[in-house]
Amino acid sequence: MINAIDSELTHPDVVVPTNVAAATPNSVGVVKTQYFEFDEPLALASGQVLERYTLAVHTYGRLNADKTNAVLICHALNASHHVAGISADDPKEVGWWDNMVGPGKPVDTNKFFVIGVNNLGSCFGSTGPASTRPDTGKPWGASFPVVTVEDWVMAQARLADRFGIERFAAVMGGSLGGMQALSWSITCPERVANCVVIASTPRLSAQNIGFNEVARRAIITDPEFHGGDYYAHGVVPKRGLSVARMIGHITYLSDDDMAEKFGRAQRAPSEDGAWRYGFDVEFEVESYLRYQGEKFSKYFDANTYLLITRALDYFDPARSTGGDLTRALSPSKANFLLVSFTTDWRFPPARSREIVKALLNNAAPVTYAEIDAPHGHDAFLLDDARYHAVVREYFKRIDKGLLHG
Amino acid sequence: MINAIDSELTHPDVVVPTNVAAATPNSVGVVKTQYFEFDEPLALASGQVLERYTLAVHTYGRLNADKTNAVLICHALNASHHVAGISADDPKEVGWWDNMVGPGKPVDTNKFFVIGVNNLGSCFGSTGPASTRPDTGKPWGASFPVVTVEDWVMAQARLADRFGIERFAAVMGGSLGGMQALSWSITCPERVANCVVIASTPRLSAQNIGFNEVARRAIITDPEFHGGDYYAHGVVPKRGLSVARMIGHITYLSDDDMAEKFGRAQRAPSEDGAWRYGFDVEFEVESYLRYQGEKFSKYFDANTYLLITRALDYFDPARSTGGDLTRALSPSKANFLLVSFTTDWRFPPARSREIVKALLNNAAPVTYAEIDAPHGHDAFLLDDARYHAVVREYFKRIDKGLLHG
Repeated sequence: MINAIDSELTHPDVVVPTNVAAATPNSVGVVKTQYFEFDEPLALASGQVLERYTLAVHTYGRLNADKTNAVLICHALNASHHVAGISADDPKEVGWWDNMVGPGKPVDTNKFFVIGVNNLGSCFGSTGPASTRPDTGKPWGASFPVVTVEDWVMAQARLADRFGIERFAAVMGGSLGGMQALSWSITCPERVANCVVIASTPRLSAQNIGFNEVARRAIITDPEFHGGDYYAHGVVPKRGLSVARMIGHITYLSDDDMAEKFGRAQRAPSEDGAWRYGFDVEFEVESYLRYQGEKFSKYFDANTYLLITRALDYFDPARSTGGDLTRALSPSKANFLLVSFTTDWRFPPARSREIVKALLNNAAPVTYAEIDAPHGHDAFLLDDARYHAVVREYFKRIDKGLLHG
Repeated sequence: MINAIDSELTHPDVVVPTNVAAATPNSVGVVKTQYFEFDEPLALASGQVLERYTLAVHTYGRLNADKTNAVLICHALNASHHVAGISADDPKEVGWWDNMVGPGKPVDTNKFFVIGVNNLGSCFGSTGPASTRPDTGKPWGASFPVVTVEDWVMAQARLADRFGIERFAAVMGGSLGGMQALSWSITCPERVANCVVIASTPRLSAQNIGFNEVARRAIITDPEFHGGDYYAHGVVPKRGLSVARMIGHITYLSDDDMAEKFGRAQRAPSEDGAWRYGFDVEFEVESYLRYQGEKFSKYFDANTYLLITRALDYFDPARSTGGDLTRALSPSKANFLLVSFTTDWRFPPARSREIVKALLNNAAPVTYAEIDAPHGHDAFLLDDARYHAVVREYFKRIDKGLLHG
């Protein structure tokens, strides 16, 4: 039953044969992770300093001679640098935006050199809480510094320096990835020709922060969290992490989408056909959420979950301009593409329109598409024809040089 | 800080001086709980039988000679029989619908005899999981039978028999209480003259069930749950219960309401005025949710939370008519008042309209009000002038005999 449900969904972390098959024909192929070491200390927004760190990176396509065709893809909460193609380590692992990035795809790797980078504090190869702390020889755990979207941008900018990329043709991301793209356009305006912000927001609402806080409480109050130093105890706070993921999942899907996928369908009626009443899994939606929660708790680091939800909470570029988003965005010199989805109740279209309005106030060049899609926040990861057509045409214009600043 | 937040809210389980003051002038006054013992076995929907049980009850006003002025108030997830007035045991405890029920209030106790009853399986005096199981002499714990909305109605009907009430002038409730009122009109059509269903739904959506499931998982996976027999261990699964309550709270409030109450306000800036970055409580909304969660975990029984959320999940009167709500409601002989609130995203107006449409299909007399209130699902508990005017006028018509069937 669980398999049947999963095969209907193309959620990025659900690895099923249909995904692999979809990846093969028009894929960037098998990709190996590259590791970049940085020894120059990174001063973080919190005031702490990260003395040295590693970034795990994928690249797809070829950087042209004048290094003007680079696209940076920023990831959201639970994703990684593995944006497209098939992992060299595991052929079942397909990139989370494989439908978007590849040869002939909306972000066409025949034209563009695409970089995916795992963010600091994450758990897919870049330095994070599970990494060894140099001065103690033990995992960072709870002592890993709080990181912000702006910190990630600084680290990504140093990665760009390594490639010799002075200016990205585009910086692009969905959700938290869109926040990074937006931050790039403000903090490194000379280095971003195009800024692509999908299903994002200029700041979390109180409700968004509330959901993050409940997820964090579930993790922190799990007795196996051990104040963040669960590595030393040989355990993981899997119960808390599972609950956190279940909460997240509900907020990623629209009410209608859940209704269509699961409705009130009950599992396995009893043999006599009578209704059952109990506390086991009774409804399909429970089965799905439990499965997602348990799977997530086996591969994702709990401290990373805490760090990244905090980065989401803190993101608010207008904080330094007294809440004036127009002024906050005024340094930007990029062309913008914004996309939102009508049924996204996590970061609804109104939040994207706030950004569009602020950009228009600054007379910035902005294209905005509001896609009538049923899939809630997750729509940004799915293969919607109208959505992909918008991104495809935008990148064609970039390629033709029409949108170079 | 917590007090400052609480005093702004009139949430039913937040007991603050302003509430007490508000309760005094037009209150039913000090009320004592009455306990009714039932020895006749109750056959439950699950097939199990409850041999004997107790119901905790409040009454307000006086039953008239022909016993035609009785109003039954049904409670929602975390409430009780304490609908109005001040508890005889604790003068700080004010009824959860004190603004609705009392002398001169919309449900006027100068006219009506109002009954509040704590449901089976709850934890405020009626038989529930924390009660002693007669055959073992120990708490029921996880062995307490699953109860449904229909089971509650049967138990409430027996209570009505004790009072000699053949037919209620009205059965009324909000949220889960509205489901009970609706169920009364179907299962005991001769006994309900008026059915008042506020901020309710004919069935939970997949999203509603999803949130319930996450809350249950938080409780069940708390190591101090001990399979539901935590009483024997002298502990309570307070961490899980706290997380469950936090999730609930977010779904009771509207996004706008949370924005207005908390926004992105951060607590206690550091002395040098610099932004702080950390995992302590940073935002007001976190402080509020944590406080609510912890307070709830101290007085509410975890097994009751599981039972009542399951009763919510299972409620679906149209299940027995192949999904046809019109046919499911056809036995009803009541007049109906339905009220919904525009910003209620838990049980939005569209769900109430489904009920209204089914009633109109049956040519049932129905009044429907959709109140443009900013407070989300919680609006049904608050003192909104237009909402209260609708209920007041409806009960005036009941009193004048206009709506007697």
